[in-house]
Amino acid sequence: MIVNGKHYVTVWLDNGTVKMINQHKIPESFEIAEFSDYMRTADAIKTMVTRGAGAIGASAGYAMAQAFLAGEDIEKARAEIEATRPTAVDLFVAVKMVFEAGEKGGAEGAVSAAEKYAKDNISAGEKIGKFGAELIKDGARVLTHCNAGWLAFVDWGSALAPIYAAKRAGKKVFVWVDETRPRLQGARLTAWELANEGVEHAVIADNAAGYFMRKGEVDLCIVGADRVAANGDVANKIGTYEKAVLARENGVPFYVAIPTTTIDFNTPTGDDIKIEERAESEVLEVEGRRVANATSRARNPAFDVTPAEYVTGFITEKGIIKADGKAIKGLV
Amino acid sequence: MIVNGKHYVTVWLDNGTVKMINQHKIPESFEIAEFSDYMRTADAIKTMVTRGAGAIGASAGYAMAQAFLAGEDIEKARAEIEATRPTAVDLFVAVKMVFEAGEKGGAEGAVSAAEKYAKDNISAGEKIGKFGAELIKDGARVLTHCNAGWLAFVDWGSALAPIYAAKRAGKKVFVWVDETRPRLQGARLTAWELANEGVEHAVIADNAAGYFMRKGEVDLCIVGADRVAANGDVANKIGTYEKAVLARENGVPFYVAIPTTTIDFNTPTGDDIKIEERAESEVLEVEGRRVANATSRARNPAFDVTPAEYVTGFITEKGIIKADGKAIKGLV
Repeated sequence: MIVNGKHYVTVWLDNGTVKMINQHKIPESFEIAEFSDYMRTADAIKTMVTRGAGAIGASAGYAMAQAFLAGEDIEKARAEIEATRPTAVDLFVAVKMVFEAGEKGGAEGAVSAAEKYAKDNISAGEKIGKFGAELIKDGARVLTHCNAGWLAFVDWGSALAPIYAAKRAGKKVFVWVDETRPRLQGARLTAWELANEGVEHAVIADNAAGYFMRKGEVDLCIVGADRVAANGDVANKIGTYEKAVLARENGVPFYVAIPTTTIDFNTPTGDDIKIEERAESEVLEVEGRRVANATSRARNPAFDVTPAEYVTGFITEKGIIKADGKAIKGLV
Repeated sequence: MIVNGKHYVTVWLDNGTVKMINQHKIPESFEIAEFSDYMRTADAIKTMVTRGAGAIGASAGYAMAQAFLAGEDIEKARAEIEATRPTAVDLFVAVKMVFEAGEKGGAEGAVSAAEKYAKDNISAGEKIGKFGAELIKDGARVLTHCNAGWLAFVDWGSALAPIYAAKRAGKKVFVWVDETRPRLQGARLTAWELANEGVEHAVIADNAAGYFMRKGEVDLCIVGADRVAANGDVANKIGTYEKAVLARENGVPFYVAIPTTTIDFNTPTGDDIKIEERAESEVLEVEGRRVANATSRARNPAFDVTPAEYVTGFITEKGIIKADGKAIKGLV
């Protein structure tokens, strides 16, 4: 990704220090946050300095590598890193990969494995872009939810990669950006990314997605995922299920873009996926200011499960496949 | 409605001055705003000092009466009052009623007609409560969108009236409150009303409504409406259509509570209803602070249309009826 004329990735390891784009600061400012040990990196994942399946995975892999580099208690470090965010499977994939490489090859092996995860994540995003761009006709209007772009990965992204690839191939693309309450990753992050890439877009309240689908102004939905079960059920940002149901109701194709690392072959169905419930304050406050009645409570599930039947297909780095258990099995 | 131990209505006429609960201030503070002439009252409707179908209707009726009392150019006043909000039909109903009474009986006739509209609105809300309470079983979990309570009417409300009536009849009721972006009327107004009435509730991001429906934690949806077409299509706050589609998908009954003044027999279908599009800043900013990327634009339809097929029934002051053209015709 290019920011202010310079190429960046979302997260990287620099001489034992993890550096990442501070996503709390976007769009107000562009800052790089630095974390000198695995505990600080784990905390950055938990407090969402970085977020998004691939970026969480890469950050967790680097945190694991930091633990090896510093000669920490590795089992304890692994448990702490894995406890940061429960839903995104990439975190567990990356941590396992780096843990096993470190057990075998020491700190050097761990660092190599973490770098490989990040490199593969970039490469997967680029391929997702290439395959997904085929679905985007010239003049298409694509709706996306939350942020599954550059910032959610190491580079390129999943849901936004096809849009970037289509744009670079000279196609005209317009994006409907769900603002994505409660944390507003659409309004804050996706709109910023699209503006950086010069992609025409409009931010909408999540409530308006169905309105524009029903009016025939959405040609295609593309979202990312935090975990895909073996049967094709999709865990992704809260609200994804709503938009998928509305897409089917309105005959709008609904694609989920993922690197295959996001598929959890050990989780049979979406109902087996643990859904993180975050602080009530994310709903009751906006930008740190209380908006709801003072004595009222909230519920705040961060993700939901979209059954495979609502998903037209998965856009992966290995091509576009059907959203069912058989097609998923075929990937192994 | 009881606020701080005192009975209030949302809007009333006091010696030529229109007084209304200032809904911009809730839940932070409880203030009564006063408007000395019809132009100021019309501006209060436009800027949403008051909002909600019945409250808009009553305020517009009182504004019309103010024009008669002050000997204003009545045709001009009517046009200005009607230009404030295009979607809520109650506005046009009340203005027409007061206009015709004023033409016939002068200022006194106009004031009487405005008072009658307000009184009938209260009475309709009370009856809607009585009929609707039959649908609410002891222990029911009801989801509502936006605010169609006390504050949206002169008293009682539409969607919340059955909840208040069920609670007063000794039933246990829990309410899921969609926060209702972009203006957060759910988090701000509905949660405040429910807290005042001692009704247990939780505020949720609009994105989470489908999640709780799919988990089987919603027994019933009740919303209000700004205008119902002759075929039963419903114009209501943006997002209503989404929740109605999700309710049907999950087998959750979806009721629309309305006084029959909200039915527009002259509008054949929902697609004939003009949908107000409000300022982009309502989406791009929250609480006056920009959250979206600086150069990004937004689209902001304030209402949507829910086709009658998604509506289980209408709860009216004349009883519960089917959501179809035949049942609506039967009301005349």
